[in-house]
This record gives sequence, C-alpha cells and structure tokens, in this order.
Amino acid sequence: MAEKNTKIRQISDFGEFGLIDYLTKDIKYKNSELIKGIGDDAAVFESGDICNLITTDLLVEGIHFDLIYTPLKHLGYKAVAVNLSDIYAMNAIPKYITISIAVSNKFSVNVIEELYSGIYLACEQYGVELIGGDTSSSLSGLFINITAIGQAKKEDVVYRSGAKKNDLICVSGDLGAAYLGLQILEREKKVFLADNDVQPELDKFNYIIERFLKPEPRKDIIESLKKYKILPTSMIDISDGLSSELLHICSKSNLGCKVFEEKLPIHDQTFLTAEMFNLDPAIPVMNGGEDYELLFTIPLDKKDEIEKIPNVAIIGFMTENKDEKFLIAKNGVEIPLIAQGWNHGEVE
Amino acid sequence: MAEKNTKIRQISDFGEFGLIDYLTKDIKYKNSELIKGIGDDAAVFESGDICNLITTDLLVEGIHFDLIYTPLKHLGYKAVAVNLSDIYAMNAIPKYITISIAVSNKFSVNVIEELYSGIYLACEQYGVELIGGDTSSSLSGLFINITAIGQAKKEDVVYRSGAKKNDLICVSGDLGAAYLGLQILEREKKVFLADNDVQPELDKFNYIIERFLKPEPRKDIIESLKKYKILPTSMIDISDGLSSELLHICSKSNLGCKVFEEKLPIHDQTFLTAEMFNLDPAIPVMNGGEDYELLFTIPLDKKDEIEKIPNVAIIGFMTENKDEKFLIAKNGVEIPLIAQGWNHGEVE
Repeated sequence: MAEKNTKIRQISDFGEFGLIDYLTKDIKYKNSELIKGIGDDAAVFESGDICNLITTDLLVEGIHFDLIYTPLKHLGYKAVAVNLSDIYAMNAIPKYITISIAVSNKFSVNVIEELYSGIYLACEQYGVELIGGDTSSSLSGLFINITAIGQAKKEDVVYRSGAKKNDLICVSGDLGAAYLGLQILEREKKVFLADNDVQPELDKFNYIIERFLKPEPRKDIIESLKKYKILPTSMIDISDGLSSELLHICSKSNLGCKVFEEKLPIHDQTFLTAEMFNLDPAIPVMNGGEDYELLFTIPLDKKDEIEKIPNVAIIGFMTENKDEKFLIAKNGVEIPLIAQGWNHGEVE
Repeated sequence: MAEKNTKIRQISDFGEFGLIDYLTKDIKYKNSELIKGIGDDAAVFESGDICNLITTDLLVEGIHFDLIYTPLKHLGYKAVAVNLSDIYAMNAIPKYITISIAVSNKFSVNVIEELYSGIYLACEQYGVELIGGDTSSSLSGLFINITAIGQAKKEDVVYRSGAKKNDLICVSGDLGAAYLGLQILEREKKVFLADNDVQPELDKFNYIIERFLKPEPRKDIIESLKKYKILPTSMIDISDGLSSELLHICSKSNLGCKVFEEKLPIHDQTFLTAEMFNLDPAIPVMNGGEDYELLFTIPLDKKDEIEKIPNVAIIGFMTENKDEKFLIAKNGVEIPLIAQGWNHGEVE
C-alpha cells in the first residue's frame, strides 16, 4: 500500500509573500463598491464619490524591531510612517489611523508614553488623526498594529498594475541607506554586548541610521506630482528592496523592465558604508529594504515635467517582454532581477 | 531637601479603560469630516454622503483566549464577530475587514488554515469581505488584530451619547451565558490537566459554552429595528458586562438609569449553572461579559413597536439624575451600578 503524502507544511516553508497569498487565494469579491481588495499597497473601496483606501501593518518586537537600539519615540513615528507610505503609494492622502498595542505589564507607562509621543509626532507631521485602537497586555514582547485610512478621487488612485510599455521608471530619494543603517546598529549592538564600556561611534553613520530608525513617507513627492500634473501609471512604495518592488510592478502590469545600475540613486554615506562592508552598493539598493521611497512609472512624454521635481531619478523603462526583467550593470551585463526581499523573519 | 515624587506608574496601575484614555486625553480633532474619533464602539467619518465606521480589536493568546479549549475555527469566527458587533452597535452595516496575524513559526499551516476557515465563515455569514492584512512571525504566542469597516447614512448612526430622560432601556438576547461558559471550560481544563483520562462532561452546558466560543453579532436586531422604523437614541454592544455598558451610556448621555433585576433576560442554562457555582445569576449578567448583545435606548412612544421584535427585553429606563444609576433588586433594594468589567488582563 502506497504511503499517503501527509507531510504537514510549516509556515516557514512559505516565502515572504507565500502564506498570505496561499490563505487568500480563493477569495472572490462580490461587493461592486470594492475596487481593489488584497494585492496592492492598500485596499480601495468607494463610498459616495470618494475612494477610501485602507492598509494595515504589524510590527513585532524581536522580528521587526530591537528595543536595544530603537528609541521608542522613533518606533512610534516609524510605525505610523510605514503605513502612510502605503497610502501615498496609491497617490492618495492619508487621513486617519487606528493603533492596537499589546505590551507586557512590566513596561512602565512612561515607556508607552514615549511610543505615543512618536505616534503623535508623525500624525501631526502628516496631518492624520488617531481615531481608534485597542490596548492589551502581552505575555511577552511588544506588538504594534497600525491601520491607516486615506482618501482620493477615483480617477487619481494609482495601482501597481497600470504600467505601459516604454513608460519611464522613477524612484524618489535614495536607496539602500536604511539597510546599511541597520547593519551598523547590529554591529554596534554586538560590540556593546561584548563590552558595555565601549561607546558606539555612530556619528559618521548618522544619515543611514536615521533612514532606518525614522523613515519619512514621501508626501512631498505626491504633492509635486500633483503640482506638475503627472499621474503615474503605476506606483508602489519600496519596503522590501527595489528588485522586489520592480517585480511586483512587472507582474501586475504584465510587462518586463530594464533599470540601469548607473542611474540608481545612492547617498555618499550609503556608498562608503557598503564599501566598508565589502559590499557592492547596488546590493543594498536592489535587495535591502525599508527605504519607504516611491517607485513609479510615467508616460515617456512626461520626461520634461518629472525632471523639474527634485529628488526623483529616472532609472529605466518598462519593456514588452514580461520574461525580461533586468538590471543593466555598469559594464553592460544584463542581470536578471530576483526577489530577495527584506527578511526580518516575516512570513508575509 | 524634599524627595521628589518620581514614582513610575506601571501599566497595571491603570484600570480597564484607564490607559487608552490617559494616552489619548490630549487629542484634539481638526478634520471636519471626522464625526467621532475615540470614545464609542467605532470611529465615524464622512466621505461624500456616506459615513464610514471603523473599529479594531486585538486578541492575544494567553490573555483573551486559551488554545487548550478554543478550537481555531471558532477563534477565527469570534475574532471577526466581535468586531462586527461594534459596527452593528453603531446601527451600521459592516462591509470590510482587515486581519493582522502574528504566529509562531512552530505552527503548521493547517492550524492557520483552520483559523482562516472560521474567519471566512464569519465573513460569509455576515456579508463582509476580507480586503487586506499583514502576517508576521511571533517569538511566542498567537496575536490576531482585526479592523472592521462599516457604512451607514449619517442620520442613521447611533452613538452612546444620545439617550434621553425616560427613554426605555432594551437589550437583545440573553446575558451572562458566555461568562459561565468560560467558567465551565476553565473548570474542565483543570480537571483535564490533573488527569488526562477524564473526559469532560460538557453536554449539559452546550448553550453557554457556545455563547462563549462562538458569539453571533446581532445583525438581525439591526434589521428588525430598521423594519419597524425604530431609531435607537443610544446604543452599545455588551462586551464587558451590562453594568459597565450602562455606565457608558449614562456617562456619555449625562443621565442616570434604573434597571430591574426581574426584567434581566437570563437563559435557563445560565440560571442553573450560576446556581451550581453558588452565584446569584444577576452577577454574571451585570458583571460578566463577552455577551455581544446590543444594549440600546428608545423613546417611550416606541414601546408598542419594540415589543413586536423577538429577543428584545425592556429592562429599565433612563433617569434625569446622573448620580443615580441603579439596579432595582427583586426585593426592591436599589443597588448602585459599578463598573467591574470582564477582566482578561487587558489594560484597556
């Protein structure tokens, strides 16, 4: 008698996006007001003549953050920022957030107040309001779940799926810094744990560390795009590394792409730190993560307009052949893009 | 030199609702489309001519549920149900949910599929759609955060604050069952842990156990109220015990109340189980919790209409003097209501 295959699949068998895809693969939406469910930076539903957008993110102590080197105020700020980034990535305006926190009873209230001070600072900075939440004890560790709600006119919402052949691929800001900032913090943590008297030397890494600890979602870019009347054909925020996000745009838009190594925006400190770690600087850019910059595509005829916006780089273009998704290295070699996203132990 | 008072407040120093109130005490809302922020069953904001409602709940293993006696399918169902209950409690229709889950990598995927099967069952039962979420590993324990979004016309939304003097106080269903169901499960768990060969005898407690494990939000009551054209003046769902919820309505509406012990709706099994535990059955009704029934007030002139709706009991009335909030016992004694809500270690 043949043995039945009864292997139990473990959660760790699934890749970064595998589990949520697997669990939600059979969902069929029925509500005609629901424009987009699972599968973009945020879900989109109409109510009246307005689109509402909703996105949610869970941050887990020991998985997404380490309280040894993360000030709680920064953590609160970042928890809000990463959700707002998802709303901006749909070309919408974030309006409201809710926050659920589970925290050990051993924490003092001052600690939670610090966290909230960062939350409130981000709310004020980006004009959003905290409208609800839940608070619970946890048996161990700190858990923060934030849900953000944004709004936009239906015709303004930008999805991952709208890129067209020959569209220019653009990114805001610079990339790879947050990943290297984290590497510095991890290195200094090890030094500190080995000898508590050694004070970390972080001054010359201040830019990349701040990029990791206190990312700013690109509200300014959304405003500039509006000012110059550029409606991106597709957009996504860069949370898992440029490579992974490019693959999302290609897959959802059913196209390929070419991006050029020489065009990648890299900060001097990122460049020098990569060299210090004996890393090709393109690696943290392509496969690092937590940049929270915007990756978007625009029609070719918007080239003159986009060049007027500071802090936006054109890095490549969309191609027809969906099997060709390449980084063109400085020496001309075509390197296939692979998804090797930011891995902090997430199952999604 | 006088010693400065630098006592550090611990989270456990705060009462059940204390921490969230404390952390959010300084919030001032600016957005005129935001009708209700923190402080009701759900937040309410307008978009176009529709009101959107949003509520969020966090369930933590070891605090809110015990996997020893909680089937995962039931847990998924309940996690959705308790959020929908908050939306119904605003007289609105739930439309969408998002789910964030943090789960130990040791769990098999089958376990998570069980949880999701309950989530999907509740979605289908109540006509809501799962539109987003996040999944993460946890270092220990299972965390589930659900956010529900509902909609209603602005004039239909019912808050906690609208009760008027002499309004009738009504509740749906029966109360106190879930609390006693939990006591039975806890008792059988102890017996089982002491001797694994003893099989629990749960048959004669099936109703109260199901009330705890698989509560049903009262969509039917909202539909009946609409059918009979009764717009409650105030409403709340009963998650922390009738006493606590009555105090919320009184406090938000700036009134007092009188409710009558002889009018409290109690199921036979609840009654018998309370007697078995040597408990006055009024205690789990007033100070138990997790009933997920609706508590609402209606104008006196709707008395004939409300009596046409099955499973609704009139239990008392609102009074002018906000310092008089009483349960009138069967012997006529006036017992002041106290908030002694459901305590599962929550800090909110």
